[in-house]
Amino acid sequence: MSRTSTITLLTDFGAGSVYVGQMHGVLRRRAPEATVIDLAHDVPPGGVAAAAYLLQRSFDCFPPGSVHVAVIDPGVGSARRILAARAHGHTFLAPDNGLLGPLLDGETEAVVHSVENEELMRERVSRTFHGRDIFAPVAAWLAGGGALEEVGPPVAAEIARPGAVLEDGVIRGRLLLVDRFGNLITNVPKQLLEVLGAPEGLRVSFGGRPVGGLVGTFSDAPRDSLLAYVGSGDHLELAVNGGRASDVLGDDTGAEVRVERSPA
Amino acid sequence: MSRTSTITLLTDFGAGSVYVGQMHGVLRRRAPEATVIDLAHDVPPGGVAAAAYLLQRSFDCFPPGSVHVAVIDPGVGSARRILAARAHGHTFLAPDNGLLGPLLDGETEAVVHSVENEELMRERVSRTFHGRDIFAPVAAWLAGGGALEEVGPPVAAEIARPGAVLEDGVIRGRLLLVDRFGNLITNVPKQLLEVLGAPEGLRVSFGGRPVGGLVGTFSDAPRDSLLAYVGSGDHLELAVNGGRASDVLGDDTGAEVRVERSPA
Amino acid sequence: MSRTSTITLLTDFGAGSVYVGQMHGVLRRRAPEATVIDLAHDVPPGGVAAAAYLLQRSFDCFPPGSVHVAVIDPGVGSARRILAARAHGHTFLAPDNGLLGPLLDGETEAVVHSVENEELMRERVSRTFHGRDIFAPVAAWLAGGGALEEVGPPVAAEIARPGAVLEDGVIRGRLLLVDRFGNLITNVPKQLLEVLGAPEGLRVSFGGRPVGGLVGTFSDAPRDSLLAYVGSGDHLELAVNGGRASDVLGDDTGAEVRVERSPA
Repeated sequence: MSRTSTITLLTDFGAGSVYVGQMHGVLRRRAPEATVIDLAHDVPPGGVAAAAYLLQRSFDCFPPGSVHVAVIDPGVGSARRILAARAHGHTFLAPDNGLLGPLLDGETEAVVHSVENEELMRERVSRTFHGRDIFAPVAAWLAGGGALEEVGPPVAAEIARPGAVLEDGVIRGRLLLVDRFGNLITNVPKQLLEVLGAPEGLRVSFGGRPVGGLVGTFSDAPRDSLLAYVGSGDHLELAVNGGRASDVLGDDTGAEVRVERSPA
Repeated sequence: MSRTSTITLLTDFGAGSVYVGQMHGVLRRRAPEATVIDLAHDVPPGGVAAAAYLLQRSFDCFPPGSVHVAVIDPGVGSARRILAARAHGHTFLAPDNGLLGPLLDGETEAVVHSVENEELMRERVSRTFHGRDIFAPVAAWLAGGGALEEVGPPVAAEIARPGAVLEDGVIRGRLLLVDRFGNLITNVPKQLLEVLGAPEGLRVSFGGRPVGGLVGTFSDAPRDSLLAYVGSGDHLELAVNGGRASDVLGDDTGAEVRVERSPA
Repeated sequence: MSRTSTITLLTDFGAGSVYVGQMHGVLRRRAPEATVIDLAHDVPPGGVAAAAYLLQRSFDCFPPGSVHVAVIDPGVGSARRILAARAHGHTFLAPDNGLLGPLLDGETEAVVHSVENEELMRERVSRTFHGRDIFAPVAAWLAGGGALEEVGPPVAAEIARPGAVLEDGVIRGRLLLVDRFGNLITNVPKQLLEVLGAPEGLRVSFGGRPVGGLVGTFSDAPRDSLLAYVGSGDHLELAVNGGRASDVLGDDTGAEVRVERSPA
C-alpha cells in the first residue's frame, strides 16, 4: 500500500453520523496506510444531482490517483449496480444512478466496471448499508493498487444528466443545493452562461421572481439585496449580501432558475 | 507508540464542535503517531443508551487493539467514575453510567479499571469537560501501550441495560435513535426477534400504531409505506420506503415498540 | 516537510460541508505529510467574535508549531487583508477582521504579515472562496517550513476586541455562542470575574433576567435550575442542570450579561 494513497468520502449520511464512522473503521482495517478525507456528508438525503455536482467540482482538489467514494444511494438493496470508474486520472466508486454522469459525460477514455466480485466485499453484506459492506472494502482494495478489472465486468454507466438547457436565448436550470449561508447553488454552469455573451445585461430569476443581474461577488451588490454570481464551483449561485437567499427565495429544488438577456 | 494504533471518538458534542476539536488537539500532542477517527458525534445529548448501542455495534469495524473513547457524560463533574475496560480485544473508555453495559454483559474475560491516576490527566482538570482533560490524555496513554492497571483500581462496571424484553410471546422495546433519513432504530436485537420464530407472520407496532410485518429492505415494501426490518446494526428498525418514518411515527424515545406473532 | 506538522481548520462552513472537504483536498495535495485536524466548523455564520474566542481558548491544546487556519470571512472578495501571524509559538492565518485580536492583544513578540504573494496561492483564485484558493495553499506552505516573511509585507493587525467591561463594580458582557447542549458561552473571562473578588455573593443576570450566583459545575445546582459557572474555556457560561439554558434565556447575541456583587 502506498503511503500516499488518498480516499475521499461523499455521502448523505450527515456529518458526525455513525454510518460515516463505520466506513472509516472498515477503511482503517483494510487500508491502514491510506489517508481518508471527508469530502462532504451534508448532501440532501437522496440528492444524487447535488452529489454529482459536488464530486465533479471537487475531485481535482485532491492528488491524482485518489479514490473517491460517493454513497448517495436511495436504491440500496435493490438491483441497482455499483460502478467503479477510472477517469481524469482518478478512481470513482458510486451507485449507478447518474451520480457519475457529469464526470463521465464525453470522457471517451473512461473505464467503467460493475462491482460484483464478492471476495472484495465484507463477509456479510447487509441489505441496507453497502457503504460499509461493499464501497469501503472495495475502495480500500483499489487504493492499495487493486486492478479495476477485478471488481467485475466492464459496463456502460448511466449518464442521466438532467442539466440546464439553453433554448431560444433562455437558460432554464434548477436548484441543486443550499449551503449553510443560505446561498442557492444551481445546475447552470459558467460555460452555458458564456454562450449568452457578456454578463452585463443578463437578468436572472428564480421561481418567477427577479433576482437581478450578474455581479462578481457579494460585496459588489448593495447590502441586503439579492445577487446572482458565478460561485467557487463555477456554477450560477444566488445570494443575499449579508443575508440568506433561501429566506427570500425558498429552497424548492423543483423551482426554475432562468437566465436571459434583458431587452435593450 | 505503534504507528498502527487507532483511537475512536464517540460523543454527543455535535460534529464540527470545538469540544471535538480540542480532544483531537490533546490526542495529537500526546499520541502524535496514532490515527484518530470520529466514530459519531451526533448522539442525542445525554443519550447513553443510544451511544451504548452504537459502540457495541461499531467497535469491531476497527482494528483489534483500538482504543474507543465514549463521552456521553451528563454526570460530568459529579462523583460518577470513569471506566477503562479491555474486552473483545479492544480497549474502551467511558463514564460509569451504563454506556459499556452491552459490551461487558456476560464478558467474563473483561477487565475494568476506574480511572483515577491524576498523573495521566491534564495538569488542570476542568469540572465540565473531562473529554479533553481526562479521557483524551488517558486514551493517548493507553494507545501508546500504557498498562490498564495503571489508570486506577479494578472495579465492577455498572451493567444497567434496560433492554428489550420478551414476555408471553410479545417483545417490548423502545426507540434508541433516529438517523438522518428519519429511520427509527430500536433496542430490539435480531437475536430476540429470532426467538419468536420465522419472520413471516410477525407484526410490529410503534406507540400503539401498526407498522406491518418484517421485510428484508426498503425496496421490499411499497413506496411511501411503513416497513420494519433488521437494520445494518442487527436491530429492528422502522422506516418509510422513500420517506421519513419519524414524520409518521414521531421520535418519542419513550414510546413502545411491540413485536408479536399475528393470530393465525 | 516534517512528519509532525499539524494544521487546524476553524470555519463557519458547517461540518460535513464540501467547502471543508475542498480545503482538505488542497492541503492533501500540497502538504501530504501534514496532519490536518478540524478544530470547529459550527461557528455561527459570520461569527468573528465567537471564532476569536474559540481560537484563543483552543490553540494550545495542539503541538507548538501548529498552523491554525481560521476562515470566518464575511468580507471575502472585498479589499480586506488576510493575515499570517506568529505568536505564542504557533502560526495563525485569518482575515484581518479582528479574529486574531484576542491572540495578539498585548503580544509584543508577535509578528504579523499580510498575505499577498500570489505565487503561494492557487493558480486561479475565486472571489468567494479564499479558504480553498488562498488560506489552504498558504497554510500548506507555512506548515512545510516556508518563511512568514515571504507571504507578504509586515503589517499591524486589527485588534478590534469588543470585550466585556467592568465599570462601577458591574461587569457587562455579551453572548458569544450557544453550544449543542444549549449552554450560553459569554465573553466574560474568568480573570475579569476575579477582579470582583470571591465568587460567593456575585449575582449574574442575562437580558435583565436573574440567573443566580456562581457555582462550580452543573451538579452543584438543583436539577432544572439556571446556573452560572466558569466553563472549560475559562469564560462565564450559563446553563440549566439537566436542561437547555437557551430554551429559557434565548440565544440573542445582542443581549447583555451582567455580573455584580449582591448588596449585603
